[in-house]
Amino acid sequence: MKTLTVELGERSYPIHIGPDLLSRPELLTPYIPGQQVLIVSNETVAPLYMQRVETALSAFQVSKLILPDGERYKTLDSALQIYDALLAQRMDRQTTLIALGGGVIGDLTGFAAATYQRGVHFIQIPTTLLAQVDSSVGGKTGVNHPLGKNMIGAFHQPRCVLADTDTLLSLPERELKAGIAEVIKYGLIRDRAFFQWLQNNIEALLERNPEALAYAIEQSCRNKAEVVAADEREANQRALLNLGHTFGHAIETETGYTSWLHGEAVATGMAMAAHMSHELGWLDEAEQRATEALLAAAELPLTPPPMTPERFLELMAVDKKALGGKLRLVLLKAIGNAVLSADFEPAALNRTLNHYSRTASA
Amino acid sequence: MKTLTVELGERSYPIHIGPDLLSRPELLTPYIPGQQVLIVSNETVAPLYMQRVETALSAFQVSKLILPDGERYKTLDSALQIYDALLAQRMDRQTTLIALGGGVIGDLTGFAAATYQRGVHFIQIPTTLLAQVDSSVGGKTGVNHPLGKNMIGAFHQPRCVLADTDTLLSLPERELKAGIAEVIKYGLIRDRAFFQWLQNNIEALLERNPEALAYAIEQSCRNKAEVVAADEREANQRALLNLGHTFGHAIETETGYTSWLHGEAVATGMAMAAHMSHELGWLDEAEQRATEALLAAAELPLTPPPMTPERFLELMAVDKKALGGKLRLVLLKAIGNAVLSADFEPAALNRTLNHYSRTASA
Repeated sequence: MKTLTVELGERSYPIHIGPDLLSRPELLTPYIPGQQVLIVSNETVAPLYMQRVETALSAFQVSKLILPDGERYKTLDSALQIYDALLAQRMDRQTTLIALGGGVIGDLTGFAAATYQRGVHFIQIPTTLLAQVDSSVGGKTGVNHPLGKNMIGAFHQPRCVLADTDTLLSLPERELKAGIAEVIKYGLIRDRAFFQWLQNNIEALLERNPEALAYAIEQSCRNKAEVVAADEREANQRALLNLGHTFGHAIETETGYTSWLHGEAVATGMAMAAHMSHELGWLDEAEQRATEALLAAAELPLTPPPMTPERFLELMAVDKKALGGKLRLVLLKAIGNAVLSADFEPAALNRTLNHYSRTASA
Repeated sequence: MKTLTVELGERSYPIHIGPDLLSRPELLTPYIPGQQVLIVSNETVAPLYMQRVETALSAFQVSKLILPDGERYKTLDSALQIYDALLAQRMDRQTTLIALGGGVIGDLTGFAAATYQRGVHFIQIPTTLLAQVDSSVGGKTGVNHPLGKNMIGAFHQPRCVLADTDTLLSLPERELKAGIAEVIKYGLIRDRAFFQWLQNNIEALLERNPEALAYAIEQSCRNKAEVVAADEREANQRALLNLGHTFGHAIETETGYTSWLHGEAVATGMAMAAHMSHELGWLDEAEQRATEALLAAAELPLTPPPMTPERFLELMAVDKKALGGKLRLVLLKAIGNAVLSADFEPAALNRTLNHYSRTASA
């Protein structure tokens, strides 16, 4: 097992990464101050892992809530179901909420933990690669609104994150690849050496080689923890973690959070950001191609669904990074060097949107 | 105009108290970082004061949302209406939300500000005495759940509070008295001299003497600001501000947040807490009588609606101060000296509940 720490003063917390962590109560119990625990999971994950977590927590008074699976349930309505469960059991301010599942369960449960009785304790047990390398770390919680993704939320750090790599063995192929998209993101925005490691090890990751997966998770979490420690509330640097996300959110909103996985939309978004960065003359052609090649090697989609440039712009305008009506995008100066900028030639964005609306997958 | 400061380091903010503040843009503009402002108000307050606030903010891009008036609209559903308004206008992360109204509008708008895009700027313009002396100061935001009051919420400090004493001239009689209940609370929990001043000046407050009102608001806000600065997240001392609230919330929940005003329920709750404190031998009889006498002089209700002791206990059990299933109550050792305790003789609580269930107002 490897342990990293997210350094946030009094609110610092560990990320444990390794096999068979779900059966180790000593990793969880130091972070549960009261007696009451509510584990929130979904219909896919609960049958696989709920029993093991419950057994590990047999010293506590454990309740469970099992929600349907899917991004379309990441709503205020699902949060209300969590509040209902907490209140029906009269759970108090010392309650600990545990998210057992992927990014949707983590973001939603974290939001309920942030807002139940003005904030209760929270533990993340991410069971997808995407959640292990990204959403479970850093304290961003939230739900979607019909007009935009993650528009309702709060910052609320977990007290501990348990990334059990064994849970990835049961992960559907498509979700594994979607998680790899976020792994590639860290290489692109701030870690050129890791990008090169990924170029050499992408096959091993797709084959779920345990050592390769553990290394990729560790490097991803280390990068994320460094960024979060430096800029918890996204005044600045943290926004770079959203490479590909503004394009990607537009795709997800357009398709109603159903047909595209988040990581798939981010992959296409990163390809679009790389294209635009090249159009601006910021990213050279070889690096744009290397970016596309790595995404393609990970068997990720590189083209958006049929959408006009106008529709893209409309959906991108509600992005949280927009300021004073001006769109800000994360773009690449080089592999391993991303910037957040509103100061780009708009024609480059139009050329990219036109290019992709012509090549759109049907 | 008097100005107090809530000392919270980087998040410190001023409370301005005095007449005719609504027309002074210079009190607001330093706290509005972007261009976009959403003023949230209700159908009662908006016709009286919205125009003046809009005029003061003519330099900004101002939107308005006017909700129905009443505690029963302090729900997640109303918060959703605020999110809808923000997103329909594509308001960004630099947006400032202004609450123009009483405690319901303040708590609800504050919650929306805490959770829109993980937190935007927030200004309180309280227009009731209760909101000016209590709910607008200290950063507690939230909405009610059918199973309990303020069960969903967050801590989110405003950037400034503007208590314009002129707005109290239009306040209905009952709401003025309900506000005085919270004013009396500060005397009871931590300020014996202020309690004595109130004994001598209660008539002047009921007659809305401007100097008396301004003094009462200032002393109340000073007391509240000191408590919040010492214990922002209610680890300890801040819970004392809830004197009378556990009994009071049970009354409000039982009556569906309709027939009783919050301050009225708190007044009855404080009488009940004083009774129980006397039953425990903590508060002497003369002080219990002085407490009841001051509440009666303020023409506040001293007896709950018909409720059995069992019903009271059931509703009190969901209180946020409960810990590990054990009820904690704010009780009085003396006027000006409150304590939070779970360590009381349960028989005293039963005697108080029995006493009040016999004397209940029909």
